[in-house]
Amino acid sequence: MKFSRLGAPGSEIPVVHLDGSTYDLRPLTSDIDGAFLASGPVARVAETVDAGDLEPLPDASSLRIGAPIARPGKLICVGLNYAGHAAETGAKIPAEPIIFLKGSDTVVGPYDDVLIPRGSTKTDWEVELGVVIGRTARYLGPDDDALDYIAGYVVSHDVSEREFQLERGGQWTKGKSCETFNPLGPWLVTADEVPDPQALALSLQVNGVPRQASTTDDMIFPVAELIRYLSGFMVLEPGDLINTGTPAGVGLGIEGNPYLRDGDVVELTIEGLGAARQKLVQA
Amino acid sequence: MKFSRLGAPGSEIPVVHLDGSTYDLRPLTSDIDGAFLASGPVARVAETVDAGDLEPLPDASSLRIGAPIARPGKLICVGLNYAGHAAETGAKIPAEPIIFLKGSDTVVGPYDDVLIPRGSTKTDWEVELGVVIGRTARYLGPDDDALDYIAGYVVSHDVSEREFQLERGGQWTKGKSCETFNPLGPWLVTADEVPDPQALALSLQVNGVPRQASTTDDMIFPVAELIRYLSGFMVLEPGDLINTGTPAGVGLGIEGNPYLRDGDVVELTIEGLGAARQKLVQA
Repeated sequence: MKFSRLGAPGSEIPVVHLDGSTYDLRPLTSDIDGAFLASGPVARVAETVDAGDLEPLPDASSLRIGAPIARPGKLICVGLNYAGHAAETGAKIPAEPIIFLKGSDTVVGPYDDVLIPRGSTKTDWEVELGVVIGRTARYLGPDDDALDYIAGYVVSHDVSEREFQLERGGQWTKGKSCETFNPLGPWLVTADEVPDPQALALSLQVNGVPRQASTTDDMIFPVAELIRYLSGFMVLEPGDLINTGTPAGVGLGIEGNPYLRDGDVVELTIEGLGAARQKLVQA
Repeated sequence: MKFSRLGAPGSEIPVVHLDGSTYDLRPLTSDIDGAFLASGPVARVAETVDAGDLEPLPDASSLRIGAPIARPGKLICVGLNYAGHAAETGAKIPAEPIIFLKGSDTVVGPYDDVLIPRGSTKTDWEVELGVVIGRTARYLGPDDDALDYIAGYVVSHDVSEREFQLERGGQWTKGKSCETFNPLGPWLVTADEVPDPQALALSLQVNGVPRQASTTDDMIFPVAELIRYLSGFMVLEPGDLINTGTPAGVGLGIEGNPYLRDGDVVELTIEGLGAARQKLVQA
């Protein structure tokens, strides 16, 4: 099942795309948020559609596509989770997952503009598999099926400012939490439609030039292990978003460091999760 | 004006403490959240009390004291912002503020238990002046009065797990976002009652032993400068919380590293902002 949120920023309408139709989910929920994702949404939506209780949304295709989930409670990022990316940044392969947080107010729609921060010269791209939590996860053990805690998957763009991240003292957050720095979507694809999250091709182009192309099979720490690991350090709540790391090919790692400039266009795709496209605009 | 939130976790009642009475704010707002804080709450509450439109909350003193603000959108922390603390951790004085984020779901009430994470041996304390944002701040310039963007001040306990933070690879977040790791309150004291945020004594005791005692005058980067600086890297939104750093005297910096154990009691005070007290309990 594919959920999305359509309409102007701040007043998106929750919808589901089923059998060629786009159904308005508002009889069922006011938003695609943690409470909805924790409520067994796939079965609930299927029943409601079968009962004829959802109507197609008129003019759905003319509406802006928002991020497919409401603002997450936490936006958790995994650093250096692909060997090729660790190598290109000059870092060692991490012995255990590297974790940082990004301001969850950075989430915007998959076709919204990305603002280059004032004073930035090193705004960079990162395509990532986004994992959205559907059940509270706390101290999962080796016998817990960590994938059971996932509501679905999403294309996530972990935009990064490398000078702010790496050269301005201390922690990475400073280069990760700038306004509009996390385009998300187009869809939240529910977990039942993604039998193996480690078998997804992902790619990114800048102005039509291929820059990142990999598969999630190349992750150092796979999704299930990340969730189990994270649950030992923090409570994962329904609606939380995990950016699972980016493969090689970011501006930081390419000869000449072709960072993003006003007017550049970034296109991202993940197999089965759809495509996104953002224009860069000076803030 | 002093706001707080009273009642069971998740169903706290917003109140204001005025002239010896505790008034129920629900005729005015459902919560002490960003929208309320951005609405000019001091004048609105004063008018409503003067008009006789607020009632005292019965049995207020028998209710649990929750965190005085709803869960913040962002919980932003400043690292190493007191010279004595930087020295005790073996770090250099930072040239510009060190910033990281903490999961905002770590916020609990000022008298709630703090859970020692499973596997933790280095759970540590940090008393901090918490600053709550009242107006959207974005790219503030040198002529902007940064203090104008503050709704109020609060006692904040930035509980930290030093092994998770410093010895488990990468970024500090891992040792900062554990469940219950940010007791907050008792009150949000509105900015009009704190003419100088750099003139507040703050202190912390563990089991009655004084461990931290300093004043906010010892901050390397004062509050106004922090807000101006942060606004260049991220948008500060009403209801966001900034932990402005801790002075010397944490467990990490004391001979013998007397980290917190099950049953320990931490007491925190900041001049004019009230006192808090938490018991440590094994998760």
